[in-house]
Amino acid sequence: MLRSHNLGEVNEKLVGKKVKLCGWVDSIRHFKQMTFILLRDRYGKVQTVISDKSKFSKNLKNVTLESCIKVEGKVKKRPKGLENPKMASGNIEVEVSKIEIFNSCPSLPFDMKVDSLEDMRLKYRFLDLRTDKMQKNIILRSEALKAVRDFFYNEGFVEIETPILAKSTPEGARDYIVPSRVHPNKFFALPQSPQLFKQLSQIAGFDKYIQMARCFRDEDLRSDRQPEFTQIDVEMSFIEQDDLIDTMERMLKYTFKKVLNVDVKIPFKRITYEEAIEKYNSDAPDLRKDKTNPKEFAFCWVVDFPLFEYSKEEKRYKSTHHPFTMPQTGKNKLDFNEKSKAVAYDCVLNGSEIGGGSIRIHDSEIQEKVFDILKISKAEAKKKFGFLLNALKYGAPPHGGIAFGFDRVVQIMAGEDSIREIIAFPKNKEAKDLMLGAPSEVSDKQLKEVHLKFGK
Amino acid sequence: MLRSHNLGEVNEKLVGKKVKLCGWVDSIRHFKQMTFILLRDRYGKVQTVISDKSKFSKNLKNVTLESCIKVEGKVKKRPKGLENPKMASGNIEVEVSKIEIFNSCPSLPFDMKVDSLEDMRLKYRFLDLRTDKMQKNIILRSEALKAVRDFFYNEGFVEIETPILAKSTPEGARDYIVPSRVHPNKFFALPQSPQLFKQLSQIAGFDKYIQMARCFRDEDLRSDRQPEFTQIDVEMSFIEQDDLIDTMERMLKYTFKKVLNVDVKIPFKRITYEEAIEKYNSDAPDLRKDKTNPKEFAFCWVVDFPLFEYSKEEKRYKSTHHPFTMPQTGKNKLDFNEKSKAVAYDCVLNGSEIGGGSIRIHDSEIQEKVFDILKISKAEAKKKFGFLLNALKYGAPPHGGIAFGFDRVVQIMAGEDSIREIIAFPKNKEAKDLMLGAPSEVSDKQLKEVHLKFGK
Repeated sequence: MLRSHNLGEVNEKLVGKKVKLCGWVDSIRHFKQMTFILLRDRYGKVQTVISDKSKFSKNLKNVTLESCIKVEGKVKKRPKGLENPKMASGNIEVEVSKIEIFNSCPSLPFDMKVDSLEDMRLKYRFLDLRTDKMQKNIILRSEALKAVRDFFYNEGFVEIETPILAKSTPEGARDYIVPSRVHPNKFFALPQSPQLFKQLSQIAGFDKYIQMARCFRDEDLRSDRQPEFTQIDVEMSFIEQDDLIDTMERMLKYTFKKVLNVDVKIPFKRITYEEAIEKYNSDAPDLRKDKTNPKEFAFCWVVDFPLFEYSKEEKRYKSTHHPFTMPQTGKNKLDFNEKSKAVAYDCVLNGSEIGGGSIRIHDSEIQEKVFDILKISKAEAKKKFGFLLNALKYGAPPHGGIAFGFDRVVQIMAGEDSIREIIAFPKNKEAKDLMLGAPSEVSDKQLKEVHLKFGK
Repeated sequence: MLRSHNLGEVNEKLVGKKVKLCGWVDSIRHFKQMTFILLRDRYGKVQTVISDKSKFSKNLKNVTLESCIKVEGKVKKRPKGLENPKMASGNIEVEVSKIEIFNSCPSLPFDMKVDSLEDMRLKYRFLDLRTDKMQKNIILRSEALKAVRDFFYNEGFVEIETPILAKSTPEGARDYIVPSRVHPNKFFALPQSPQLFKQLSQIAGFDKYIQMARCFRDEDLRSDRQPEFTQIDVEMSFIEQDDLIDTMERMLKYTFKKVLNVDVKIPFKRITYEEAIEKYNSDAPDLRKDKTNPKEFAFCWVVDFPLFEYSKEEKRYKSTHHPFTMPQTGKNKLDFNEKSKAVAYDCVLNGSEIGGGSIRIHDSEIQEKVFDILKISKAEAKKKFGFLLNALKYGAPPHGGIAFGFDRVVQIMAGEDSIREIIAFPKNKEAKDLMLGAPSEVSDKQLKEVHLKFGK
């Protein structure tokens, strides 16, 4: 190791000890013959002191802000009255005996101590990520990933990685497509969600499926959307709505406790869709007492969504969620119609829909009646959904699931206004990666290899 | 919950109790007036008994192999002499009072109790995944994911999700490219590895990066390759080769203990590249005492790879790994040449290279000399690697890393011959998903939207 301690480990206990420290120059200050370099890493900050700067003059001119350096020296108590109670290492400083510059840093493209233009921050994301805020956000995200997965593993869920090179589906948003080289004129599609695969995992008997799933939608962007995003993706067999809701409430409680040390009260309030619209004029009501308080976390469930919505344009009923959503029925399983409600639920936090799901149809008679109401012919159903309908016939269990927008959840946890603040390397609002310069041109050879040319 | 217990929970302690059980029909056997249905889920198997099958005749004709059913009944001891010591629930059976069929199963496309043609298994993967072997393999994979991540989290690593929609790079294997709709004639590329991003995470100060990273290579396939695969992706700052090797040895020891209860001895043997070639005629030697024993795990490191290889075709030196690999130098950092060795290392298990990495160059003078030897001009270097070279100038720390082929590691842990056996939904040898039918055709509209047409 090039260092003896990280900067979070340097404190009064080390007084008198020699240390080797590495980090970035957070500030540099000259005072008479002395130079103070505040060294920073993701664990903390430590003041280092050069008592006689003339001895280091050759090196010091390259010690610029954000340079990465190593110092060796002795830890000593700060002179009385010069302690800094705001710093964990505020009672000590390191008397520098040796300094090594790993990489100097040219003048910064933006001031890292103040809010800067987002496009500039994204272009130099490797610098922007060094700021206290971004370090905190990315580490919070990492801790949330850990907490969510730990919860599900402890409950006996199986993590299954589903394909990214998947199949284009006619429903939903626009797919990103990937031309195949080996199979001319054919394409993979990046998954909008692993919906199909998670249902297949249940047909395959895995019973409790979890994945922090990467999903892709080629939509026009807005502040809380990205071309790619991460979903807490869950599917369970042999359960009813209450079982799923209970498990998800415990997952959120566990995660908020572990990551933020916040106690979330469960069970959450449940509001029917009708009541939400009537009383709050929204299907994602904000139940905070103080709607300006980002540290208040008000969860609720919105349940009993209508199974169908009437489309005036198409003059037919459409599924509110998707055509595999289980209807609420009477005593007989076929007791449902255009006006029925669905076994579908949304999870809402502070006025944002953070998750949604449903119990799926596993019964072919119910499925047929749903297609009848949707005016989807057998041939059309087979073409659009044939694969899943076929798989469901091979001894499919009753099952249901939910997906949470993980980025959105972390954004609210971090109290940020945009999901770009909690993603390490996001695209900007124009779906560009400003740092990499992506998307970019490819060679004619690359295009030819996948049997394509530019259209007009 | 539709069930009172999963099938792993049903044992002698429940004798006399009423239970509700769900699962799949593993076998069905008629004997006089009785019918025995062996019920299966991922936790176990339980024998259920219908004493008078005439009472269930209507239902029973639909209880076929692999149907998904629910039975209610009382747990009782099996008659003396009829116990099955091979089953965890072999001392009991459930006397069925009620049976519900969630989904019957048509005749099976292959016999799930014997080895079947792989393409048939892949087409009906949702059935194939129900077999004991595939259940075991997928759960083992999930446990390995958990163990690896737990190790790194416990060591203070930060998990960072890097983009899948990234940039085409001219080095390495063939990229999968994704046309942009918003930016005509421009493309994203799926990452062959997050190499660039993991180095950026270190420049950004994250110090210890981990990701179970999805990677993509459009290569011609063979038994141990897939178009997409998962990499244990690691990068660390302020470290030397020994620090990285030590951390990885402890990670592998932890994972093999947790998942297989196997004690791996560390440190592993280290062999120089020269010695490996001389003594074993391979850069990935198999050090097992018995090379036919899949339960013996013989790890080693191969170190001191040559920095460059001479390409007779191109009449110039090329990087053995990549042009950012740190040379082994003399006292002076520029003491290296065409014949020098690299600070690069491979991890080998049972004759398979399971991981490889290097310490990276963070010093621009060393980097320039490497480009000189490679006969890469400044203009060319800027065009090919400009972005990374630029980022490295902004106070980059000394750093290095490694990537393990997670699929390969799990394959060896599971004792399988092909990585397809440890991937839930793999492509076949022709890069096709036989279950989904992907890649597939897309509509003219979809192609137009991304400004492309078919070439000739």
